[in-house]
Amino acid sequence: MSKTLTNRSENYAQWYNDIVLKGRLADYTAVKGCMVIKPHGFALWENMRDALDKMFKDTGHQNAYFPLFIPKSFLSKEAAHIEGFAKECAVVTHYRLKNDPNGSGVIVDPDAKLEEELIVRPTSETIIWSTYKNWIQSYRDLPLLINQWANVVRWEMRTRLFLRTTEFLWQEGHTAHATREEAVAETKQMLEVYATFAEEFMAMPVIRGVKTANERFAGAEDTYCIEAMMQDGKALQAGTSHFLGQNFAKAFDVKFTDKQNKLDYVWATSWGVSTRLIGALVMAHSDDDGLILPPKLAPQQVVIVPIYKGEDTRGPIDDKVYEIMKQLRAKGIRVKYDNDDNNRPGWKFAEYELKGIPVRIAIGARDLENNQAEVARRDTKVKTTYSLDSLADNIETLLTDIQSNMYKTALAFRDDHITAVDTWEDFMEVLEGKGGFVSAHWDGTPETEEKIKEMSKATIRCIPLDNKQEEGKCVLTGNPSIQRVLFARAY
Amino acid sequence: MSKTLTNRSENYAQWYNDIVLKGRLADYTAVKGCMVIKPHGFALWENMRDALDKMFKDTGHQNAYFPLFIPKSFLSKEAAHIEGFAKECAVVTHYRLKNDPNGSGVIVDPDAKLEEELIVRPTSETIIWSTYKNWIQSYRDLPLLINQWANVVRWEMRTRLFLRTTEFLWQEGHTAHATREEAVAETKQMLEVYATFAEEFMAMPVIRGVKTANERFAGAEDTYCIEAMMQDGKALQAGTSHFLGQNFAKAFDVKFTDKQNKLDYVWATSWGVSTRLIGALVMAHSDDDGLILPPKLAPQQVVIVPIYKGEDTRGPIDDKVYEIMKQLRAKGIRVKYDNDDNNRPGWKFAEYELKGIPVRIAIGARDLENNQAEVARRDTKVKTTYSLDSLADNIETLLTDIQSNMYKTALAFRDDHITAVDTWEDFMEVLEGKGGFVSAHWDGTPETEEKIKEMSKATIRCIPLDNKQEEGKCVLTGNPSIQRVLFARAY
Repeated sequence: MSKTLTNRSENYAQWYNDIVLKGRLADYTAVKGCMVIKPHGFALWENMRDALDKMFKDTGHQNAYFPLFIPKSFLSKEAAHIEGFAKECAVVTHYRLKNDPNGSGVIVDPDAKLEEELIVRPTSETIIWSTYKNWIQSYRDLPLLINQWANVVRWEMRTRLFLRTTEFLWQEGHTAHATREEAVAETKQMLEVYATFAEEFMAMPVIRGVKTANERFAGAEDTYCIEAMMQDGKALQAGTSHFLGQNFAKAFDVKFTDKQNKLDYVWATSWGVSTRLIGALVMAHSDDDGLILPPKLAPQQVVIVPIYKGEDTRGPIDDKVYEIMKQLRAKGIRVKYDNDDNNRPGWKFAEYELKGIPVRIAIGARDLENNQAEVARRDTKVKTTYSLDSLADNIETLLTDIQSNMYKTALAFRDDHITAVDTWEDFMEVLEGKGGFVSAHWDGTPETEEKIKEMSKATIRCIPLDNKQEEGKCVLTGNPSIQRVLFARAY
Repeated sequence: MSKTLTNRSENYAQWYNDIVLKGRLADYTAVKGCMVIKPHGFALWENMRDALDKMFKDTGHQNAYFPLFIPKSFLSKEAAHIEGFAKECAVVTHYRLKNDPNGSGVIVDPDAKLEEELIVRPTSETIIWSTYKNWIQSYRDLPLLINQWANVVRWEMRTRLFLRTTEFLWQEGHTAHATREEAVAETKQMLEVYATFAEEFMAMPVIRGVKTANERFAGAEDTYCIEAMMQDGKALQAGTSHFLGQNFAKAFDVKFTDKQNKLDYVWATSWGVSTRLIGALVMAHSDDDGLILPPKLAPQQVVIVPIYKGEDTRGPIDDKVYEIMKQLRAKGIRVKYDNDDNNRPGWKFAEYELKGIPVRIAIGARDLENNQAEVARRDTKVKTTYSLDSLADNIETLLTDIQSNMYKTALAFRDDHITAVDTWEDFMEVLEGKGGFVSAHWDGTPETEEKIKEMSKATIRCIPLDNKQEEGKCVLTGNPSIQRVLFARAY
């Protein structure tokens, strides 16, 4: 295996693909547009899932599981939903194969045609609200705070590993409430959960904002989002939380009696993040030598590599390493000992750099004599020699430091990539040059938004929450504006 | 909500459905054959999944995720696999919807027909082995020990919640090895993992055995299984582990160079358990008042119900309960305090019996005065009064006792339902009467096996591992036999 990656500066897209493939996060498959998430990538997803799942449960949510299939007619029930939602879906039309009478293989049995086609869920609002109808009668049944971890399918012609694939894994929360206020509060709470997760676990700063009408989820009254900045100056939407009003309750006739015995439609939210976050993680932090994973999410936080010549010198090193591992594990640190004889230390060093393991410890016979070990951190590549007596404590501190350093580095980059501009020339110059978010006045009309998108390929990523209100002139039309919004080219 | 269940003795099938629906484990949906797993049922599945996942990882396996879709042609590649495997599959033929030009809804876009149809995975051997081909070149790449947690679809005409649904959740392990011996050892190891899980976590005794050729997985050289006994005397296959030989390696051309630089096909295993286990858990333990859940898997192990008249008396009870909860949680016990004012204690008692919570604690004002609480165990319904000083310790012991008592009860029932018979009359009498496993001689031919199935609706559940070899005469044909095998009617 060649460990050489394409340089970021030469070809960012190829660099990204190299990292995902050679860092063993994912691979292509025989099914067009579908990827396999390999063990290293899946372990990363498990850590992300577990952290998020705990945050969901701590805020009172429960998990459930709804069907993969949605009757075709359900998709048309909420007008804006079907109008706005992409119609590229996997459609199940038959339920049986049979032996091909003319040959060896199998064919679809024409007698096994479904009366109504089933759609493989692209998102589950419709099937879930058709179920909630049976679960909600009274205010006592509310709020209903449910999340599901699931696979979804949106047919894509041009795919990129993790960022846009036909099938992907995600979680989707679907909550039901007695009042508008409570549903809005839930929508905002979950946005904050996502932002906290991105910043504290992924070490990836995000801007909390609200989408314009053009960019809203189909069927939502408001879409809140977190937006992150990648190293090539493009933005990435890292999570969305939708206030759905009473739209789906009306579409599926879900009413409840309130405390005053009055009948009303239920208020709804939905919110989700997906395996796309793995793509964001790669692009926010990695370098030309491979992945850089934040310690809180890294499948292994520490790898120990023994340095020895000949089997006879390995025994004492092994013994010491097992002792160190015990100390590290007692602190809850995920550590791996790679004493595989098939590969040389240099190969292992490169391999774990590629895979983004935050800390590497190397121990040889001379180190043992000197009661020390060489410790290399992945983020800055700085190497330090530590006494074995205080090694575990030092590693613990180091992991915390790497986590916060990664965040600071990404934050500095992000802040350096928010540029306020007041003219169209500057707008285009920033986009074509350093990239990043462009903070500019906009006249508030969908027409101008659309025109800017056509002219610049930049979209309004969001109107930041608690945005400063200031008078100005639209960067394109010169019409009056009350605030700046954030534009960017985006994944 | 009526909490009255059908009695087991009156209508076992209806009792089962009542428990699943009223115990809030699952519900029907608008999609025929697909269920929704409700929060209480899903929390149970999460606990099962987490326990199994730890056992898989402790035996060196890693998780990954492969595509939902399988190209139709892949299914024909392994001859026995497609021949033996049910062809009732969900078939995706199109990838786009469009607005109906004649009306309001959406229709399938005839221009978006797939060149090759995709099958929603009924099991993943084919897609996984087509991927392993790219991952395995040398003995250094082996063993490959991978598991995936996923949804699968097998079209079913007659469905039963958890036991047989069109979509279900499961895990499927798929491993690749350099030698036959290693693959066989893996197959047996995973069977033992399943057996341990069933007995230690589900409190459900199982018989470890091997399937006859007729009952083998399509494409396997040997199928090992664990078989459990339900309270109505029917058997339930609770997990299978397959030794696949080199069949899939040959079908997908997966070869490796061994240490002597010789090229050979890779040896394979696959193994799985599913949400069907929830059905088994219900039927192995529950009673006419509802679910009985083993403490190791129960979403909540302890529920505390306050007994009070009027808000003013609740404060001191609340304070004491929070103290108790803290003590219980410090011991890792999952406890819930139900101080919801909307429901009365009697309603709550029935509700938690129905949901199978192992231990219920009731505390009233008088209990506080006497420094005690009333503790009811769900399995035997015995109530005991404990001093609050030693409550947490006593609850911890009680949970252990409930877990082992449930196992003992199920084991006694199971052992009482293995009957050795030597004549066809006795064979049928046992099946029609007390049911259970019938241990009988069989002449070893598929024809006799098939004939017995037709005549009695009983199948050979397994040939137990380490089965006693004894001469005898086949219970149907009188032909010579070398051992007894276990017959039963089964789910």
